[in-house]
Amino acid sequence: MSKKILGIDLGGTSIKFAILTEAGDIQQKWSIETNILDDGQFIVPDIIESIQHHFSLYQMTAEDFLGIGMGSPGAVNREKGTVYGAYNLNWRELVEVKKPIEEAIGLPFYIDNDANVAALGEKWKGAGADDENVVFVTLGTGVGGGVIANGELVHGVAESGGEIGHVTVDPNGFDCTCGKKGCLETVASASGVLNLTRKFSEVYAGDSVLKKMVDDGEQITSKQVFELAKENDDLAVKVVEEFSFFLGLACSHLGNILNPQFIVIGGGVSAAGEFLLEKVRKNFERFTFPNVQESTKIKVAKLGNDAGVIGASYLVKMGK
Amino acid sequence: MSKKILGIDLGGTSIKFAILTEAGDIQQKWSIETNILDDGQFIVPDIIESIQHHFSLYQMTAEDFLGIGMGSPGAVNREKGTVYGAYNLNWRELVEVKKPIEEAIGLPFYIDNDANVAALGEKWKGAGADDENVVFVTLGTGVGGGVIANGELVHGVAESGGEIGHVTVDPNGFDCTCGKKGCLETVASASGVLNLTRKFSEVYAGDSVLKKMVDDGEQITSKQVFELAKENDDLAVKVVEEFSFFLGLACSHLGNILNPQFIVIGGGVSAAGEFLLEKVRKNFERFTFPNVQESTKIKVAKLGNDAGVIGASYLVKMGK
Repeated sequence: MSKKILGIDLGGTSIKFAILTEAGDIQQKWSIETNILDDGQFIVPDIIESIQHHFSLYQMTAEDFLGIGMGSPGAVNREKGTVYGAYNLNWRELVEVKKPIEEAIGLPFYIDNDANVAALGEKWKGAGADDENVVFVTLGTGVGGGVIANGELVHGVAESGGEIGHVTVDPNGFDCTCGKKGCLETVASASGVLNLTRKFSEVYAGDSVLKKMVDDGEQITSKQVFELAKENDDLAVKVVEEFSFFLGLACSHLGNILNPQFIVIGGGVSAAGEFLLEKVRKNFERFTFPNVQESTKIKVAKLGNDAGVIGASYLVKMGK
Repeated sequence: MSKKILGIDLGGTSIKFAILTEAGDIQQKWSIETNILDDGQFIVPDIIESIQHHFSLYQMTAEDFLGIGMGSPGAVNREKGTVYGAYNLNWRELVEVKKPIEEAIGLPFYIDNDANVAALGEKWKGAGADDENVVFVTLGTGVGGGVIANGELVHGVAESGGEIGHVTVDPNGFDCTCGKKGCLETVASASGVLNLTRKFSEVYAGDSVLKKMVDDGEQITSKQVFELAKENDDLAVKVVEEFSFFLGLACSHLGNILNPQFIVIGGGVSAAGEFLLEKVRKNFERFTFPNVQESTKIKVAKLGNDAGVIGASYLVKMGK
């Protein structure tokens, strides 16, 4: 009988678990709250306990599994199976993840950073259609990404391959948390949308609901901006046009450098879906080499919150 | 006894041949003129004849070789071993390259496009120091490149991986031959240097030898511009600063997306060497994520004209 895979998506709010077939179909799914108290020291024990509990619940043993895969925030050492600087977990110092889990469960354990793992998920079972050349860009609080070329993640020499959020799209743009200026993240994340809204609002004179909300000091979300743009609010349209210009430009760099089959756009800010992607594609095409325009396609992510557990399982499948 | 490899670098002016050891050391080297008459129909037969002639000259047979590798201009079909649209060879239609050479010589034959092959050469035996993650950028008449990630060339889905010359560095910049605007090639090639020179010259008022040359209608080369910049000619310095800004920006995209160990800059326009690279690095650092700044290094290419035959041999070594 073919074996199962256990995929784990470790986040600052919850830890998601899933049992998958080798073909990547989810059979069971559960999650627990992330307990970040006391420097996050309960996280790994909680994971172990939850696995053991569910193994007994489903009358399964380690024998039934190929291995465990995990996506984690922070800086991951894939070989040693350690994580440091995962601030949303309160893991400031180096934390051993692989060793205690392997010892307790008795299964091989694989780990990579969360953006890479989500990229693998979308590549394998999502919008990437299991192609060998897929780039994933996730637009959320920040902008992350993962690059898959020739079927393999591109980690680079210091694990900074896929830092798509820090591609410079505007040399004189907004300050970024990384210390640079004009990173994609400063315009194409949730806070990026607000950066653009404030900037355009300051010089805007006209009739706009969004402008009125800004002037009234209302708290604005990126979701509201996209919704207003769909309703043709003049200021919101300007913001979304600029957002799409920069995202299209960044995607063109991915296209011209890598010529992937798919550039998959995911994350909460991408919820506007085709309304947004149409505008992004227009700019992408403007900035890409003709042969890339024809061959590289921009798509919306498919897996939503499951990308993490599915991609984590793919780590096991690939044995790395 | 270990076998040799035959590397061929097919160009519009000459065809270079080299016999290498498996370790990549050149043992013999020769070249013939490229006869582009009558739709380039003599090129493949000339190659076969030259190989046969030199095999007999060196008292070698196919038995002594692992295979033959070739870098070619135009659009290469690596599997079928065909080339089309290599206009500098007068190969407008599809040309069979692999089949006649394999039949005549009796050795396995591998082919890839010339920029990719030069990238492999620099990766294997040049400035890339045989690292698994190397990007090569060649600044010549145009700007070409090759991306090596996880030890493999990134061809992309339609063989347009590494179109670094068409990365958009200035959305409102000069027109490019590809139909877009502001491609790296429009500023960082030999003709790009002249584009920048003309642009800055028009609005320049001051004391500059370069300005005088432009105004006198003299023919200017990129080499002269770099030499004048070294001598602190005011206009030439401005041109080189702008050149370095755009090249540094494009390199930052390579760094943020791929985090390679090395970005290797080659080609005739890079002859200015460290004088140029210092300025490029300054812009690269300004635009790259801190972890990439520290880990990705920009270097000058080492192999010069030998990159092609060495990289072509590497195709054989890798068996692809």
